[in-house]
Amino acid sequence: MRDENCIFCKIANGEIPSSTVYEDEEFRAILDLGPASKGHTLILPKEHFRDLTELPEDWCGKALFLAGRIGSAMKKELGAAGFNVVQNNGTEAGQTVFHFHVHVIPRYENGPKIAAWEPGTTVPEEQAEIAEKLKNALS
Amino acid sequence: MRDENCIFCKIANGEIPSSTVYEDEEFRAILDLGPASKGHTLILPKEHFRDLTELPEDWCGKALFLAGRIGSAMKKELGAAGFNVVQNNGTEAGQTVFHFHVHVIPRYENGPKIAAWEPGTTVPEEQAEIAEKLKNALS
Repeated sequence: MRDENCIFCKIANGEIPSSTVYEDEEFRAILDLGPASKGHTLILPKEHFRDLTELPEDWCGKALFLAGRIGSAMKKELGAAGFNVVQNNGTEAGQTVFHFHVHVIPRYENGPKIAAWEPGTTVPEEQAEIAEKLKNALS
Repeated sequence: MRDENCIFCKIANGEIPSSTVYEDEEFRAILDLGPASKGHTLILPKEHFRDLTELPEDWCGKALFLAGRIGSAMKKELGAAGFNVVQNNGTEAGQTVFHFHVHVIPRYENGPKIAAWEPGTTVPEEQAEIAEKLKNALS
């Protein structure tokens, strides 16, 4: 299913040109126009899913496995030392286009830090309470 | 297959206690001890894979689908407004434990930015060259 007003539907399906690095029947991977680092790639499904909470398990498998293949290609072809896989859900999480996508960001030696955070601290009782809530919701 | 010297193998298999939020035959999800935000969760396979480049496609599917379920639980149970899925590969990408894992980081209204970066700029010729290299490696 596609969303006629979605720019990523149009890009994924080839109606808007892009720097495509990979394409199959279900996905297109393109270079990001505002890259965090050289070779920053986006994986887009050709069908429309708003975010990860809508993506079926087999599409999840193909998307993440493809991210690993792209990361390996970045190491081999671009000299990347490692790579980050980042996938954002919701405005507050930095999602700006509401068509599920996966960022694959190559990392180079002495390059900038991306997808980093300062480790916080925890209170045991609060952790136990959080774990219980999530556990119940996931059981 | 397990690695006897790997702390995440021990945690995933219950030999070291953790705040477990989910467990099945192949995965355990636990609260991170140095959370980026309240409820920050790690998904660990019970078998040892160094990073995403070693993870088979069916494990990819289960891991990413589970990340979506955990994210939904964070919204429902913790009041998160959204969530980031982050998976790091290699020291330069911030990977500190060399057992594949997925971060699921809840995001709250007016909370700190995580997994954010400054968009860079591109040179068309360079983009075309990068796309060609990756495309060839992935074809």
